[in-house]
Amino acid sequence: MTQDRRGEHQRPSAPSAADPAAEAARAPTHAERTRTLVHAARSATLCTLTREPAGHPYGSLVAFASDAQGRPLLLLSTLAEHTQNLAVCADASVLVAEPWGLHGSPLAIGRVTILGPCAALPEGAARDEARAAFLAAHPDAAGYADFRDFAFYRLTPTSLRYVGGFGRMSWVTADAYAAAEPDPLARAASGILTHMNGDHADAVLAYARVLAKVPDASAATMTAVDRYGFELAVTTPAGPRATRLAFDAPVDTADAVRKAMVDLVKRARAAS
Amino acid sequence: MTQDRRGEHQRPSAPSAADPAAEAARAPTHAERTRTLVHAARSATLCTLTREPAGHPYGSLVAFASDAQGRPLLLLSTLAEHTQNLAVCADASVLVAEPWGLHGSPLAIGRVTILGPCAALPEGAARDEARAAFLAAHPDAAGYADFRDFAFYRLTPTSLRYVGGFGRMSWVTADAYAAAEPDPLARAASGILTHMNGDHADAVLAYARVLAKVPDASAATMTAVDRYGFELAVTTPAGPRATRLAFDAPVDTADAVRKAMVDLVKRARAAS
Repeated sequence: MTQDRRGEHQRPSAPSAADPAAEAARAPTHAERTRTLVHAARSATLCTLTREPAGHPYGSLVAFASDAQGRPLLLLSTLAEHTQNLAVCADASVLVAEPWGLHGSPLAIGRVTILGPCAALPEGAARDEARAAFLAAHPDAAGYADFRDFAFYRLTPTSLRYVGGFGRMSWVTADAYAAAEPDPLARAASGILTHMNGDHADAVLAYARVLAKVPDASAATMTAVDRYGFELAVTTPAGPRATRLAFDAPVDTADAVRKAMVDLVKRARAAS
Repeated sequence: MTQDRRGEHQRPSAPSAADPAAEAARAPTHAERTRTLVHAARSATLCTLTREPAGHPYGSLVAFASDAQGRPLLLLSTLAEHTQNLAVCADASVLVAEPWGLHGSPLAIGRVTILGPCAALPEGAARDEARAAFLAAHPDAAGYADFRDFAFYRLTPTSLRYVGGFGRMSWVTADAYAAAEPDPLARAASGILTHMNGDHADAVLAYARVLAKVPDASAATMTAVDRYGFELAVTTPAGPRATRLAFDAPVDTADAVRKAMVDLVKRARAAS
């Protein structure tokens, strides 16, 4: 499949394949990034096909949750346009995106389009599981979830288009998506970044200068952290750079991140 | 067209048609609310039809602007999936929504689906106008707007589905939409609400008790303001209520709102 990269290459913050540190550092796969993003999402755009005129693409806002396999779960009113569209044709996609607040540009937001048929779950164990997962994400929906004109819907992914911001995009197969796991640090990441950038700016700059091999870095900010490592936005005399550093082994708790960060800063200071 | 109201009626904050004050107060039409919402939007979900398989609905994130007639303007890369979809079939919709941060529930957000054909603008005056409007909204895009593989697209509305949050939804015709004007207070509204709720809570409570005829109100918050009036969330012993009050005549500047608010508080105090 084609990639849309021209605009992204205008952005100084895109990790560059010519950057040896970035090449060396293991990063989450697009399937993993997609699972992480979907796991956190609480709202989405549902795309269905209109009835009149037939087959026109129709976007609508929905409350969103996902099950243990990452399949989208929706709670829809039978009276709503999108639900009546699905009754005629189950073909659908959902677009889920990171929160707007994380980025300056809307196009820097990580997002995924999940394509597949979307159908109501009949009474039974699958419906009960979907109900439990949906209400865990949306407790307020308990007030109307069991009304006669509401039903739980599940979208079965057939393919996924991941766009992780500038310069990161690909098709993800349904099998790769189902096999991937959401990042265990997703919930903790924001707090880790705030802590590191706020209280350990000197350590972050040492990572950039020594470990990422940008000796003329004048400032550095940690912009992302996941089980495999973290990303830095680095200020240099030649302009901004982005780079990525890996942990020695995957970490899955905030405590393990703290220990890994301390080890790395010791290594940076020993080498400088 | 049908309405999806069951879930909304579970929400105490929905303005009720049984509320005499709400009935009496002129409110923006759905066409006006839609124009206002579109005018402010800077990102959207574009819905197109996939090529392979043919005709599957596909949602993607786009940077968004609109022209003086409220028509959606997009700047798309010819390499992107959605652009290749449009090259085969121009049928599209865009979903634009209010910012997430304004509301607790994603389904309380005002949003609109604009349906119609979406086509690249050839070189000429229309393209130049679209370019100017788009770059005014997205100055950063000037860096790649004129690359050979980017083009400006315009969606021509054929119909619009407005959902203004709980209990407010309808189809809006393209003619009504084109004839409506964005609210002149849209940009000032947030500052007006902060000022009134922060510095004039006593006046807001007087509006609720006297003018909105909720004498047992124990607290009131101004939740929206537009050229025709404003909305209040009122706390009463019987639970929360929502109501709307009208200005005597439409206002179109923050200064005119201030004067109208002062007049109303004098009236409330004279009547109490």
